[in-house]
Amino acid sequence: MAQSLPNPHLALMENDKLHHLGYSTTEDLKALFGDVKFVCVGGSANRMLMLTTMLHDEFSIPLPATGKPENICKTERFVMYKVGPVLASNHHIGGTSVTIVLHELIKLLYYAGCVEPIFIRIGTSGGVGIPPGTIVITDRGYDEQLKNQHIVTTLGKFQVTDAVFDKGLAEEIQRHHTEKSHDVIIGSTLAIRDFYEGMGRLDGAVCEHGEEERLAFHRKLQELGIKNIEKEATSMSSLCKRANRQAAMVCVILADRLSSDRIQLTPETYKEYNLRPLRLVTRFIKHRLEQACDGYEAKTD
Amino acid sequence: MAQSLPNPHLALMENDKLHHLGYSTTEDLKALFGDVKFVCVGGSANRMLMLTTMLHDEFSIPLPATGKPENICKTERFVMYKVGPVLASNHHIGGTSVTIVLHELIKLLYYAGCVEPIFIRIGTSGGVGIPPGTIVITDRGYDEQLKNQHIVTTLGKFQVTDAVFDKGLAEEIQRHHTEKSHDVIIGSTLAIRDFYEGMGRLDGAVCEHGEEERLAFHRKLQELGIKNIEKEATSMSSLCKRANRQAAMVCVILADRLSSDRIQLTPETYKEYNLRPLRLVTRFIKHRLEQACDGYEAKTD
Repeated sequence: MAQSLPNPHLALMENDKLHHLGYSTTEDLKALFGDVKFVCVGGSANRMLMLTTMLHDEFSIPLPATGKPENICKTERFVMYKVGPVLASNHHIGGTSVTIVLHELIKLLYYAGCVEPIFIRIGTSGGVGIPPGTIVITDRGYDEQLKNQHIVTTLGKFQVTDAVFDKGLAEEIQRHHTEKSHDVIIGSTLAIRDFYEGMGRLDGAVCEHGEEERLAFHRKLQELGIKNIEKEATSMSSLCKRANRQAAMVCVILADRLSSDRIQLTPETYKEYNLRPLRLVTRFIKHRLEQACDGYEAKTD
Repeated sequence: MAQSLPNPHLALMENDKLHHLGYSTTEDLKALFGDVKFVCVGGSANRMLMLTTMLHDEFSIPLPATGKPENICKTERFVMYKVGPVLASNHHIGGTSVTIVLHELIKLLYYAGCVEPIFIRIGTSGGVGIPPGTIVITDRGYDEQLKNQHIVTTLGKFQVTDAVFDKGLAEEIQRHHTEKSHDVIIGSTLAIRDFYEGMGRLDGAVCEHGEEERLAFHRKLQELGIKNIEKEATSMSSLCKRANRQAAMVCVILADRLSSDRIQLTPETYKEYNLRPLRLVTRFIKHRLEQACDGYEAKTD
């Protein structure tokens, strides 16, 4: 049975238009999205296209006649792809943007009657004493106050909410790690609000601190058990938890920020690192579908 | 003379790579961007394309052979167009995203030796007791604490910064209003962090309040003198002021949130409203260039 959502107003709405995805409840969303079991989101549209292409191949689902996956987002704001039971959407950068997409994806699948869909963010991040190429699956999100929390502001009021991902799901995804080239660890993630100043970088248009202070901050993060830094961990974990949706976050590390605040990878290595979490999540999804004994192929015959 | 930037580290960098725009200081940025006088940013890539197409026409600069403006952003993260002395880039949604683009655009034009470039955000917003179609030019940005400030977090430390736009520039842009169909007002703007919960909407995946509380909140905003709500006013005004760059924000209102929290415009009206701030900013830019007595045509001969 499809899970309810903690918003009593939705039941009273004649037509709920999802402003940024472009779909509305006047359409047959059950027919369009009723079979979705997994939602993958990531900042980059290219990364979502790479994932989608990989899934077409893994599921042996032929590509459309155009030779490339079809973007089914109905506005220009985001891209969205569907490959069998997987929906993939980009969310651009930051908590504001990722929550827009998640609010709308959660509602879309609720209206489509999907049963317990799983939401997975696949991203890139900076490491804290962790080498580039490592994958971090997040258990807890830390906010800019360096607390394991996410503060939601509604109508001028502040509410402290939990910023935790599903532990069992994180461990299950980790068990699908089969590659010897790198580690997959579970750990805490700091979500900052600004790529330049928030991360303490030295290369913004404005910077008032030096390398010593930057390093001292990252050592403090290390003491707190924070493994990596990105921008969406707290927003995503808080929203999915409050909406009672299972969620995970799987990010590859592009630079160890205890060494340098700049990404120094060749284009080839950058691409390979980007593919690592995609492969891990694909293995997890395939295994889950096989386990369910209602393999996707059988369902689409 | 090009203005300096408040970051002493930049002078020591061998190669500054602008991660999201894809340019670096190994290129001849002066040749590529040295003539830029105005930078227009907006959330939507389409809006930036509309602006760019309008500017090609206004400046009588022919379009490339492809028949459309050329996207010169070198990564997939954003789009960027250049039409003579105007650079236009999208920034997607939220403070995290807009500051990334602004840090990199400010640095780009600094390296290109541009003299006092002006930064203008052209956006859409919700009105607070102001009818749809009205243009608001922002003087002050209010944050989610409902204070005229922007809190910057760097290395775990919080710094309260000014969130004010250039008053003279706002008034100058307003003077170029010539259309009878709508008003152009100067006023304060609330920047929230979340389209659904932050704005107190009733149509998110999660919602714990009712219409009465939503309206009471918006009436409180009205009492504070806030004219409209969007997501970037405080981040943008704070960063531009700290970098000593003149900035303005010109947003059209799509819905009066004292009446309803949903946008109820026909596609034609939506498009017409979107064009209004583009036309106003274009008139301002043209007039400034004419005033400078070094009109763009003359410079590119």
